[in-house]
Amino acid sequence: MNEFELIRQYFSPKSKAVLGVGDDAAIISPRHDLFISKDLLISGRHFPKNTPAQAIGHKALAVNLSDMAAMGARPRWALLGLALPEVRKPWLQEFSKGFFTLAERFGVDLIGGDTTRGELMISVTILGEADKTQALRRDAAQAGDDIWLSGEIGWAGLGLRAQFGEISLSSHDADRAIQALNYPEPQIALSQNITHIAHAAIDVSDGLLADIGHVVSASAKAQHQHLQAHLQFEAIPLPNPLQHALAIGVDAVSALSFGDDYQLCFFASPQQRNNIAAIAQTLNIRLSRIGQLREVDSAASPLLLTKNGVEISTSCFGFDHFA
Amino acid sequence: MNEFELIRQYFSPKSKAVLGVGDDAAIISPRHDLFISKDLLISGRHFPKNTPAQAIGHKALAVNLSDMAAMGARPRWALLGLALPEVRKPWLQEFSKGFFTLAERFGVDLIGGDTTRGELMISVTILGEADKTQALRRDAAQAGDDIWLSGEIGWAGLGLRAQFGEISLSSHDADRAIQALNYPEPQIALSQNITHIAHAAIDVSDGLLADIGHVVSASAKAQHQHLQAHLQFEAIPLPNPLQHALAIGVDAVSALSFGDDYQLCFFASPQQRNNIAAIAQTLNIRLSRIGQLREVDSAASPLLLTKNGVEISTSCFGFDHFA
Repeated sequence: MNEFELIRQYFSPKSKAVLGVGDDAAIISPRHDLFISKDLLISGRHFPKNTPAQAIGHKALAVNLSDMAAMGARPRWALLGLALPEVRKPWLQEFSKGFFTLAERFGVDLIGGDTTRGELMISVTILGEADKTQALRRDAAQAGDDIWLSGEIGWAGLGLRAQFGEISLSSHDADRAIQALNYPEPQIALSQNITHIAHAAIDVSDGLLADIGHVVSASAKAQHQHLQAHLQFEAIPLPNPLQHALAIGVDAVSALSFGDDYQLCFFASPQQRNNIAAIAQTLNIRLSRIGQLREVDSAASPLLLTKNGVEISTSCFGFDHFA
Repeated sequence: MNEFELIRQYFSPKSKAVLGVGDDAAIISPRHDLFISKDLLISGRHFPKNTPAQAIGHKALAVNLSDMAAMGARPRWALLGLALPEVRKPWLQEFSKGFFTLAERFGVDLIGGDTTRGELMISVTILGEADKTQALRRDAAQAGDDIWLSGEIGWAGLGLRAQFGEISLSSHDADRAIQALNYPEPQIALSQNITHIAHAAIDVSDGLLADIGHVVSASAKAQHQHLQAHLQFEAIPLPNPLQHALAIGVDAVSALSFGDDYQLCFFASPQQRNNIAAIAQTLNIRLSRIGQLREVDSAASPLLLTKNGVEISTSCFGFDHFA
């Protein structure tokens, strides 16, 4: 099977709404401002080498959809770059199934891409639409804002550690954790509901503390203020097995630095609490108020984490691909 | 140096015209239809492993600009995905110089991307603007069209073979060939001049015969006709050292299957010959009329290549990453 047959067989775009597919470039006619992002996923780094192909196809698109959720944009189009060590039809079938199942759920059209031979690597470019004045930007959080988090964080990190035998989970918890790791759910519906309510948002990919730190730093810089996120450890929803791990000595900062959950963390005025409670009810999801953004006097740390009223040092957190 | 510092130091977008840089997605406000393409470049596959970093930075953007040229779109924005085995500052400096020098020449803003550790791989997504009715699509070549080619083809292929010691060139020719391989020049100016003149275009990346084959097949399918490109070998401009190689036995089809030159091949009505001659003069470039597209009776091969009036078989041509 050559490159062109491979593309035709497994990655033929399903939509006829886009011109130029199979040409040197795809052509789209956006009706709004356009939001664009790209993420690279490399085998053994962004997912364990033994990850099922269907999960890889899902996750490669999901992390990009999550970037659209973090911006308040409606995802519309994707391009897929795929480097493969070899052409194996069952692998391609499963990968393609994972990718397109998610794409169809969110109405995303694959409009182009590139394939080549190489170490397994997936590079998705995602394009979404929104009015740019409604963007959920990192740098627009306001002093006094509540800090909100969807769902629970830590499941994907537990899944990763369970796969490598670093922790042991009940088989029920292990299934749930590995599902969270392999099939993250981008928070598109929540995002679309908060574009008029939240000031700023980020998806939790690097780890909760690191990602909140990004919002605080960007907002402080944009607004020429000293800002600090005050987080109450007790208010942050953690999976039961992670709470057990904490009880036997895993430290709290590590637990809040697991990445890859793709929950949405957003910043909104306290006046929006009723609206946010209503959204949680409508969407049947858990939304937790985990802290508040405050203006501080001097150039303090962007984060202040307390547990039982006592401050915990957060000097080392987050995930860095070049650390 | 961590991932965030690396991005800040070497890949800080120069433009303030785009919102959202450094956020989860960049935001642009296109005023026309949008043309989008992405190409992956992998070390040892798309460029020799010893290629200078500046050349890699240039080429990664150039091949994507060439896709815009092939479509008749004006390139505007780029996203850069970069997997690096290690962070070496001199390498990053040179890579960044190659990328941004070319970007600035063509007015392209870097608006986002992703970096990670891994086998050296560059994934650029390019976005350009044009009215979609003026797109130089592959599937719009017309029976009776002249087939035109810019410049000479074969220099980059000679450069590659010279680097691997497969052929020997004079030092002057070797310099020119390796320059062509490492610093391909996207044909943006030519492209912008022929959007109202040509019916179809493609950039010569896979090899002249393969790329013309793509246009013929796509146009035949779109127009429900049997089409065939009649090419005269003598009319195709080849570098002197390649002509010498032919004289000593390299076969003609191989010579026309060297890829990576990124010249533009376009299809236009014979009524446009004077206009095209004027464009060549204005831009001071060589444009050669190398053949004609004809309607044929039955499902013949998409290509008929003659040399001294005798047909040459073209059954095996082109470059395929999975062949």
